[in-house]
Formats: sequence, C-alpha cells, structure tokens
Amino acid sequence: MATLLTPLEAERAAARVMARCDELAAISSTPGQLTRVYLSPEHLSANRLVGNWMRELGMAVWQDGVGNICGRYEGLQPAAPALLLGSHLDTVRNAGRYDGMLGVLTALEVVAMLHSCDRRLPQAIEVIGFADEEGTRFGITLLGSKGITGQWAEDWLACTDAEGISVAEAMRDVGLDPAAVSSAERAQDSICAYLELHIEQGPCLEAADLALGVVTAINGARRLNCTFTGHAGHAGTVPMLQRRDALAAAAEWMVAVERFTVERAPNLVATVGQIESLPGAVNVIPGQVRLSLDVRGPQDEPLDALLAELLAQAQSIGARRGVGFDSEEFYRIPATPCDPQLQQRWHEAVMQVQGNCLMLPSGAGHDAIAIAARWPVGMLFVRCEGGISHHPDEAITAYDVALAIQAYCRAVDITD
Amino acid sequence: MATLLTPLEAERAAARVMARCDELAAISSTPGQLTRVYLSPEHLSANRLVGNWMRELGMAVWQDGVGNICGRYEGLQPAAPALLLGSHLDTVRNAGRYDGMLGVLTALEVVAMLHSCDRRLPQAIEVIGFADEEGTRFGITLLGSKGITGQWAEDWLACTDAEGISVAEAMRDVGLDPAAVSSAERAQDSICAYLELHIEQGPCLEAADLALGVVTAINGARRLNCTFTGHAGHAGTVPMLQRRDALAAAAEWMVAVERFTVERAPNLVATVGQIESLPGAVNVIPGQVRLSLDVRGPQDEPLDALLAELLAQAQSIGARRGVGFDSEEFYRIPATPCDPQLQQRWHEAVMQVQGNCLMLPSGAGHDAIAIAARWPVGMLFVRCEGGISHHPDEAITAYDVALAIQAYCRAVDITD
Repeated sequence: MATLLTPLEAERAAARVMARCDELAAISSTPGQLTRVYLSPEHLSANRLVGNWMRELGMAVWQDGVGNICGRYEGLQPAAPALLLGSHLDTVRNAGRYDGMLGVLTALEVVAMLHSCDRRLPQAIEVIGFADEEGTRFGITLLGSKGITGQWAEDWLACTDAEGISVAEAMRDVGLDPAAVSSAERAQDSICAYLELHIEQGPCLEAADLALGVVTAINGARRLNCTFTGHAGHAGTVPMLQRRDALAAAAEWMVAVERFTVERAPNLVATVGQIESLPGAVNVIPGQVRLSLDVRGPQDEPLDALLAELLAQAQSIGARRGVGFDSEEFYRIPATPCDPQLQQRWHEAVMQVQGNCLMLPSGAGHDAIAIAARWPVGMLFVRCEGGISHHPDEAITAYDVALAIQAYCRAVDITD
Repeated sequence: MATLLTPLEAERAAARVMARCDELAAISSTPGQLTRVYLSPEHLSANRLVGNWMRELGMAVWQDGVGNICGRYEGLQPAAPALLLGSHLDTVRNAGRYDGMLGVLTALEVVAMLHSCDRRLPQAIEVIGFADEEGTRFGITLLGSKGITGQWAEDWLACTDAEGISVAEAMRDVGLDPAAVSSAERAQDSICAYLELHIEQGPCLEAADLALGVVTAINGARRLNCTFTGHAGHAGTVPMLQRRDALAAAAEWMVAVERFTVERAPNLVATVGQIESLPGAVNVIPGQVRLSLDVRGPQDEPLDALLAELLAQAQSIGARRGVGFDSEEFYRIPATPCDPQLQQRWHEAVMQVQGNCLMLPSGAGHDAIAIAARWPVGMLFVRCEGGISHHPDEAITAYDVALAIQAYCRAVDITD
C-alpha cells in the first residue's frame, strides 16, 4: 500500500521546495536578476547543487552528454523501464524562479517521500533537470530534452550565441565533449513515461480558483507575417469611399480574427502582436500595413481550419476594399497531445487532494513536447499569480505547492 | 463687353502655362528633383522670372517685405480696391511642378488676355506669387499670405531651419529687411477679393470626369494622439475572453471611426495614419497601442460633433474590454468657408466653359486660408491625375488648363 504524505509532511516539503527555488534563483549571471543560460558557469553550478540534493536521497547521479543533470532512484525490478520525472533548470533573461525549477524540485520531493521510509517502487524513478528548454542563449529550444530523445540536428553544434561562441565551443568550455552528444540519448525501453509538473504561466487556474490542473495537450502554434497593400493618399483630399486604406482593412480583419477565434472552438487563441503602418504619417492614408498573426490550439485540425478561415477572411475583406492581402508562415509547431492514461492518472491524483480538477491545454511550450516524440507524457499545472511568467514577478504559494506535491506523490506511487 | 479667349487662344495660353511650369521646375536646389524653399536663392530666381513675365504684360512689379512677388495691372479707377489673384511659388521637397505655380501662371494669362487688347477693368488686378505656403524650410506655413494680412507672429523671425539659420538671417541673406516685414501688410481697402486657382490634389474631379470644380470651403482639421492601454500577456496561455488586448480594442475602434465618418455627413474624412503596438512581439498580447487620428471637414460644427462621437466610441469600446483610452489634440485649424458670391462667380464661369460644375471642399490647405482672415476668397480646382500631389508624378493636361484659363478669364472679367 502506498505511503502518502500527511498534511504536515506536505507543508514541510513545500517549504523546502520554496527555499530551494530561492537558492537556485541566486545562481545567476546577472546581479539582482535571474538569468541562467545553457552551458554557462551558472548552469553547471545549478547542476552541482541539484546533483547534491539527489545524492542525499540515495540516487545515482550523473550529468549526461548534453548537460542534463540526472538522478536515478532504483526500483525493485532494475530492468524495468524507469518513470522519468522532471523539468528544466535554465531560464529566460530576468526570469521568474519557478518556471522549470518547480518541476525538478517537486519531483525530488516524490523521491524524498519514498526514501524517507526506504520504499522502492517496482520501476526505478529518474529525475532530470533539463539543461536547456528556453533556448535563451543559442536561439534553439529544448536542447536538453532533445538530447535524451536523440533529436539533436547536425548543425546545432555550429550555432553561435550573441558573442559568436558556438555550442561546440561552449560545451568544451564546461568540460562536455561535443563529439559525445549522442551519449545522452536514452534507449526506448529504458523509460516508460514522462511526468512534468510546471507553473501554468497563464490565468486559467486562478480564474477557476484552483491550485492544480491537468494538461490535455500542449498547444500547436503557427506564426505568420501578413501584409495588406492598399494605396497611400492625402488624408485630407481623398473621400472616405474612394480610399484603399490598408489600415482600415487590417482593422476590419483584426476584429474578424478575434470574433472567429472566440466563436469557432474553445481553447483556440489568436493574437496580432506586431503592427506597422506605412508610410506612417499622421496625414497620409496608410498604403501598406504589416502585421503578425500567432494562432495556437491543442489540436492541429481545428487550428488549421481556423487559420484557413482567418486567411480567407483577410482575402475577402481586402477584395471588397481593393486592398491586397498576402501572408507567409514562418513558424509551425504541431500540437502535442498528452497521453490519455497519464491524464487520467494525474486527474485521479488531483481529485484526491483537491476534490475538483480542471483539464486545460498548455499555451506555452515545455520539455514534454520533445519527450512526446519517444515516450508518453503527462503534465500537471500549478497556479501562478496573475498568470505572470518570464518575469521577476512570477509567484506561487507554498500552500499550492504542498497540494501539488501530494498530488505528484499519488500520481507516481499508484501501487496501492 | 468682355473679351473672351477663343479656343485657339486658350490652347496657346495653356501651352505657355505648361512650358512656364517646366521652366520654373528647373529652378531647384536639388538636381533632378524640384525643391524650392522660402528665402533660398532659387526662391529669388523664381521671383525674378515671374516678375519679368509680369512686366511683359505691362504690370508694375515689386517684391514685398516678406518676399512675395507682386504685379499690378492698373484699372480704370485707380483708387478702387484691387482684385487679387495668385497662389504660391514655393514647394515641398521633391515636389510636383503644378502645386502653387499653376495658380500664379494662369492668373498671368488672365492679365495677358486683357493686355493683348489693351483693355482695363474698372478695378486693378494684382497677381501675387506667395513666397511660402508649404512651410518646408521653417516648419511654419503660409508665411507669404500671412505677410500681406499682417498675421506674422512676433517669434517667427527667430525660428530656425534644419541648419540653424533663423528667418531673420535668411531674410538678410537675400537682401530683405527683417525689421520691414510689416511693410508687406496690405490695407484692408486696397483689395476687394482674392481668387485662387489650384490643382485639386485629390481624386474627386477625376472620379467625376470633370476638369474643373469650385471649392466650397477649405477643410478644418484636428489631429490627436490616442492611446489604448490594456494588459500585456502571453499569446499562448491567456484565453481569448480573459484578455485585455489593446490592439483588439484599437481595431474595433478603427472600424467604428471609418463607419461613423462615412455615415455621419458627406465631406467628412477621418484617418488613422500612425499605429504602434507595445511591446510589439509576435507572441505577446499588446498591452498598449498608440495611434494618430486626423479628422477634417468643411464645417467646424459637424467636424467637432464627429470627433466627440469618435472619442466617446473609443471610451465605450475600451470600457467594455477593460482597456483604458486617452487622447490629446495636438493640432487644430478651423474650416475656411469660401465666399458665397465668389463661389457663385466661379460656378457661372465653370458652367459656361464646362457645361457642368462640381462643388467640393478642399482637403488640403491653401494661401486662401490666411487671406480669408481679411478678404473674401474663392477657389477653382483643376483635375490632377490620380489625385497625386507633393510628388514628382503630379500631372495635369494642357486641355484642362485651357478650360481653366477660359473659366478664370470669365470669373475675373464679369463686365459684360
């Protein structure tokens, strides 16, 4: 039968996690802020600290070929595929202290719960602190998780940071062998599943007044550069009905983008974040407008249908106004569904500790995207204040973390 | 009885006007382009050339205290207030060759028509080539026409151009006395009315398939800087209905600006020419949008009513979305109605030569705005290709100019 945490134990575990988040936040390359990028001295320091915490729990610890810090808590059947838990230890610039780190440190509390009473599960538990998820330094994301799935592209070693240092040079600088990247790849049968706990980075749990929610899928995304081309003209002399105003067309389209996205399906989002009007003078009718479109959703098919509908709308609005429309997709990532059985496992654990459970898609990307290419993935979200992330104001409560650890223990320890 | 031009005479006069526009276009400070700014050597050269053409018509010629070139063709009653005809000889940078100059050169053809048969009207005709309408050099417009109305502000002499040269220094450089600006001012009873012929700088005459139209008023204008302030957020994690997207609010408002302006009254125009989204990233919901609003119309009251309605719309759209709205008016010029009797005089002349007449407001500003502070003004518009102006592609036809000269002669010579 499973050994579960008492409320007091959960509270203590949460306090330890919060203190460790603070301790990791001090390992930064920018004084007074948190910035910790791939293959920096701070990255290696964080690995050492987390590795020490792993050893205290009786785990075998190693840093793999791409710089992930890995710990293994052996199971009763050493040959059985391990359950992998974790998240990332790198950050964006001027980051919050929970994005990534919370998932690694709560996973250690799951192991601590077993270690405290010297219990072993049938399968081993591995905890991993991924070396790079954000892509802050080299502009390539998920370098850590794609290391263990063997998805590193050949040209990544030659990619350079802002100072012209290549990934290969940076690896050598910290004692990693660029020729041994593939050593990080894990055999398919060495892992059975991946569980990741992460802050939501959005406002849905807060709006639902819940600490925890289960992720149904990680949103796919498409990004496009769009252009409306009309005819510039004198803002005083051209009557309204003789204009071919590119910005008026773009405005009508932006209203349609919002309306169609709200109407079509739940969980779809569309954003125009950038806009530029040319020539951009107060007394000249805009001849051209360039704007970005970012659409996301948890399933590719409705997402592509929405996108097609929005582009058709743009064409039709433009045609009616004598304004041309053109678009170019420059980024596309498919949706990553979470494994239904793992969703169910998280759901049961959350129901037990919270009595209620919100199922929601993830709007942001996570290491689970890469891992899902090889193994089933499941994710638990923890409420964060105001949905704020990637910012020093990122905040969570110890109360929520205690609930999260209790749910995490139940989701892992399902031997009862 | 009036002596009117035969079609052949009108054709010859038009050819002379076109050739003279070309000749003036060669007097430029920028090779291969036309740029002629206030108090430049080119300005003085153009004045000399136009002064010579005036003298050939038996006119008394002088350059006034602010640099306007003036010619007087005496009437039968020397003490009677003169009829003033003209337009400006300065240009924007990289200008067209008809904006301004056409009005001066066609006025000379009216005098030429009288001079060719040695006729005098009861009142004198004065033709003026204004020294500055565009404000290209010093950023102050209508320096020429405000010289003859005595509207020069005290601080204008100290205004500087891009090279730090003040108006006073520039005047001295070309032999004008900054202390004698007021000598340009004309006595109220020395002028009875002002007629100005100008290219339309808009598409209405072309759309109506007419060469000539009569101006009802010169549009008043108001310009505002507007700001929508919402809440920036993650483009992936914030559901559509939880957003406070400043750009979505601005888009809805821009659609309303267009719709209300079209619906409210004829001849009103509204333009959003500048727009900026902050932070301006493809994957961030805009937290703030700054945009310009330019509204114009031939009557101040409906224009102010429209503006109030548009600002109320912005407030109400913002309030519904949890997005703040703020605006600041930074430019306001009242509408300038043209004198009803002079409109009628132009209308009759146009009906006689064209058989049809379009009455339209002027969306652009003209010397007549300044003159209207002292004397009744009337304006005739000549079609220009595609409504294009302030650009080297500015184009008119000799055919239209011939019609315009015929109408101009009839409007001036109403003694039959």
